[in-house]
Amino acid sequence: MNENPSNNHKTNNLRVVRIGLDTHDQPVIITHRNCPLCRSEGFSAHARVRIGNGNQRVIATLYQADSDWLEPGQAALSEAAWRLLKIEEGDEIHLSHPLPLDSLGRVRGRIYGQPIDRRAMNDIITDIAAGRYADIHTAMFLTIMASRGLSDEELVSLTEAMISAGERLEWPRSPIVDKHCVGGLPGNRTTPLIVAIVAANGLWMPKTSSRAITSPAGTADTMETLAPVDLDLADLRRVVEREGGCVVWGGAVRLSPVDDMLIRVARVMDLDAEGQLIASVMSKKIAAGATHLVMDLPVGETAKVRSRTDADHLAEKLTLVASAFGMRSRVLVTDGRQPVGRGIGPALEARDILAVLTNDSDAPDDLRQRSVELAGAVLELADIAESGQGRRMAEQTLNSGAAWKKFEAICQAQGGLREPPSAHRKLEILADRDAEVVTIDNRRLGRVAKLAGAPGAPAAGVSLHVRLGDRVSRDQPLYTIHAETLGELNYAREFALHNQDLIQLLQV
Amino acid sequence: MNENPSNNHKTNNLRVVRIGLDTHDQPVIITHRNCPLCRSEGFSAHARVRIGNGNQRVIATLYQADSDWLEPGQAALSEAAWRLLKIEEGDEIHLSHPLPLDSLGRVRGRIYGQPIDRRAMNDIITDIAAGRYADIHTAMFLTIMASRGLSDEELVSLTEAMISAGERLEWPRSPIVDKHCVGGLPGNRTTPLIVAIVAANGLWMPKTSSRAITSPAGTADTMETLAPVDLDLADLRRVVEREGGCVVWGGAVRLSPVDDMLIRVARVMDLDAEGQLIASVMSKKIAAGATHLVMDLPVGETAKVRSRTDADHLAEKLTLVASAFGMRSRVLVTDGRQPVGRGIGPALEARDILAVLTNDSDAPDDLRQRSVELAGAVLELADIAESGQGRRMAEQTLNSGAAWKKFEAICQAQGGLREPPSAHRKLEILADRDAEVVTIDNRRLGRVAKLAGAPGAPAAGVSLHVRLGDRVSRDQPLYTIHAETLGELNYAREFALHNQDLIQLLQV
Repeated sequence: MNENPSNNHKTNNLRVVRIGLDTHDQPVIITHRNCPLCRSEGFSAHARVRIGNGNQRVIATLYQADSDWLEPGQAALSEAAWRLLKIEEGDEIHLSHPLPLDSLGRVRGRIYGQPIDRRAMNDIITDIAAGRYADIHTAMFLTIMASRGLSDEELVSLTEAMISAGERLEWPRSPIVDKHCVGGLPGNRTTPLIVAIVAANGLWMPKTSSRAITSPAGTADTMETLAPVDLDLADLRRVVEREGGCVVWGGAVRLSPVDDMLIRVARVMDLDAEGQLIASVMSKKIAAGATHLVMDLPVGETAKVRSRTDADHLAEKLTLVASAFGMRSRVLVTDGRQPVGRGIGPALEARDILAVLTNDSDAPDDLRQRSVELAGAVLELADIAESGQGRRMAEQTLNSGAAWKKFEAICQAQGGLREPPSAHRKLEILADRDAEVVTIDNRRLGRVAKLAGAPGAPAAGVSLHVRLGDRVSRDQPLYTIHAETLGELNYAREFALHNQDLIQLLQV
Repeated sequence: MNENPSNNHKTNNLRVVRIGLDTHDQPVIITHRNCPLCRSEGFSAHARVRIGNGNQRVIATLYQADSDWLEPGQAALSEAAWRLLKIEEGDEIHLSHPLPLDSLGRVRGRIYGQPIDRRAMNDIITDIAAGRYADIHTAMFLTIMASRGLSDEELVSLTEAMISAGERLEWPRSPIVDKHCVGGLPGNRTTPLIVAIVAANGLWMPKTSSRAITSPAGTADTMETLAPVDLDLADLRRVVEREGGCVVWGGAVRLSPVDDMLIRVARVMDLDAEGQLIASVMSKKIAAGATHLVMDLPVGETAKVRSRTDADHLAEKLTLVASAFGMRSRVLVTDGRQPVGRGIGPALEARDILAVLTNDSDAPDDLRQRSVELAGAVLELADIAESGQGRRMAEQTLNSGAAWKKFEAICQAQGGLREPPSAHRKLEILADRDAEVVTIDNRRLGRVAKLAGAPGAPAAGVSLHVRLGDRVSRDQPLYTIHAETLGELNYAREFALHNQDLIQLLQV
């Protein structure tokens, strides 16, 4: 063992080159096929390796390349690894074998039925936040949580761990109100309306919203067509202190950064797990400093919550977690049998919001009714309105133009109100008979909007022209597909034509 | 919709460049950050995209780069994608949105407790074999199978689907014998000995073995230090027809290609799932054409099978699947409380095998005894030896030198017998007192061998100098760590020093 330490040190280092490799949040390292360090350490393609740079460490997936732009003593890093390691071009990095992650043993234990205690949950979430889990590990964790369900204790400790992994807001006043909808209902974009209404009544509502997971639009996607939503914490605070409310993207604020990592993997899995959902929602609300929370649970066969029993179960769990963190909450179970408003897709939904705010005679009444109901519940929960008077107060705020004025001010504070874009291509889907509309499939209609390009293309989506119980004539338009590209329009059209029954018509 | 189709076609194509990107079996595509096609289709980093080239299709993970070696109209593909698409440098590829995989819906359904029927299982395995599952999806599948266990029906249909996805051997004679050990016992390398013994007695045993999953050596890793094991189907057939036996790597033969894909993900998960294990074993045996199978199930607290109850359960499932495919089988439950032989690691185990075959007076007797017991069971199951006479016949075959002669011939037929390598660095771990050896932890001893570099460095591993019940004196060597690099020696040493109790000594 008469090694020369400096020689050994030298061969264990690689010089980094930047190729602007965007892998989303995955740390990836590409070395040369003949990288001497990888040979001596026994690293081959797809290995997990520990990269060190001074005091920073990250675990990355190793790929190998055999090309001119990379020398055997060099390594290309993904931008995610670059950020986590805080390095600069030409820096040297050190590679080693990752230590086994103790927290993964707890995930495996859970597969065989052992509960995850508070400390282990914190270790798991800390490791995920630090980028130590491969996607495969995160998928294991999400799958087993979805499969065996979380105990109440696990649910609270998961929420707590997710809060600890991110920033937490403190506010100089109370109450701080918030609202959440469990989703699954296309077009159900009440949030910007509620924020405008309650902020106009003097409440503070620092709303952070998510982008779409499996749906054609998240509130952040929709709001982004009206104003910038990528605000950092300082800007969010400035907007709320000035206007009492905001609607920004939670990911930019990083109140629960782990949540975004879990959501990215859950999106690939196309999985909505109850435990993850609850911890995701509650961790962001608590981290945002909310003291009073109203939740909307739409129930319908093709909504996220399919039955009243499921809604009651979910409401119980949400309330349990809320009270574990000292938060007052109220759950409203609402009708989820059909989309809300007309638009499905970011810009189309934004137009519905503007119509309601400006008291346009053509504004979708269902969106307006839901918004005043929920805003009313917030006003009551925060003791601004007396019990039973919230809805009325919310309606007045809309009717008087105060909500619209407040919304404009919030958009200005976030960086400027803007006009939602319009799609270049449209196609109408027509009724094939004289009939009555008896069911509308939220999921498949959402799928049409996604195939049309939503939310990636903000102007894309669907505008729905009928509601349950409507009578239609043959060749009357049921909905219009909006798309930016011909390819996407064709994808959506093809799916729509193969799924004519997504709007079921009963001959009358 | 007055698009010019040829223009549309052109902008949807990218020209491929080869950078020798080795990602193991993961299809990966890297496009330029300003790739116009990705912009128009809404593909961002980490998206799953469908790549088309003529009649070939593959689903890949998309990364983006911003560097000189890649132009906006170009795409770099991983070698795995390159192979699946059968393309050549400069070819054009087409990108599109992957269609939703119906089989994934069945995996998700399983998370919520719905069984997977025969047809769905076949769809899942077919999609995995075609590279349509991201690692995240495969991890979902493996996790849920491990968590909720497989029904007998699912187990048989998984085995069947795995056979269908690969090649299947037919032999001109019967019986075709085979042997499998469930593993978890370091150094338990009886397979090459059994093949030599039974082939010397005229039986045909076309043995395909695996490389290590979570252990320091698989039989294929060990055999590779003695002869080439990367034989294709034609070569395997030639060797068996000439010598009656072989020991080759199953992955090269591709009898169950899906198994290797599942194993790669399971390795990252560090998960051994019973259903996957059984289907993996049985699919390869059946695909290899085996008609008679002997299985070794070592039981010990730190072996893979920890109790007699677990062994009986596993034996029942293995026998069930064997009989579902018309195979005769026999299960031997053996002692798994300590490693077998002296060596742990490919080359060290190979030396033990050579010592037994050549009747070396210093050969490890436990390895010899196990091998004749199992070989004897094979000889009896195949009706070559009368009941109770198999062991004696196997011993005679070893004693006479016939087994050694047969083994040499098999190695020659596989490409030449070779000398196993020796490691450059060694370090002895000593007893810290006068004592008796009361327990040996198979798992942690295996971990020392892995940290020392096994199986990546074939000469690395551990040689064990004591067995249960041995008396040792202070400073007497318990085991020797073998490594190729100082770094690995130090990893192993550090772990060994922090885990002195992996060999428990009771003061006498």
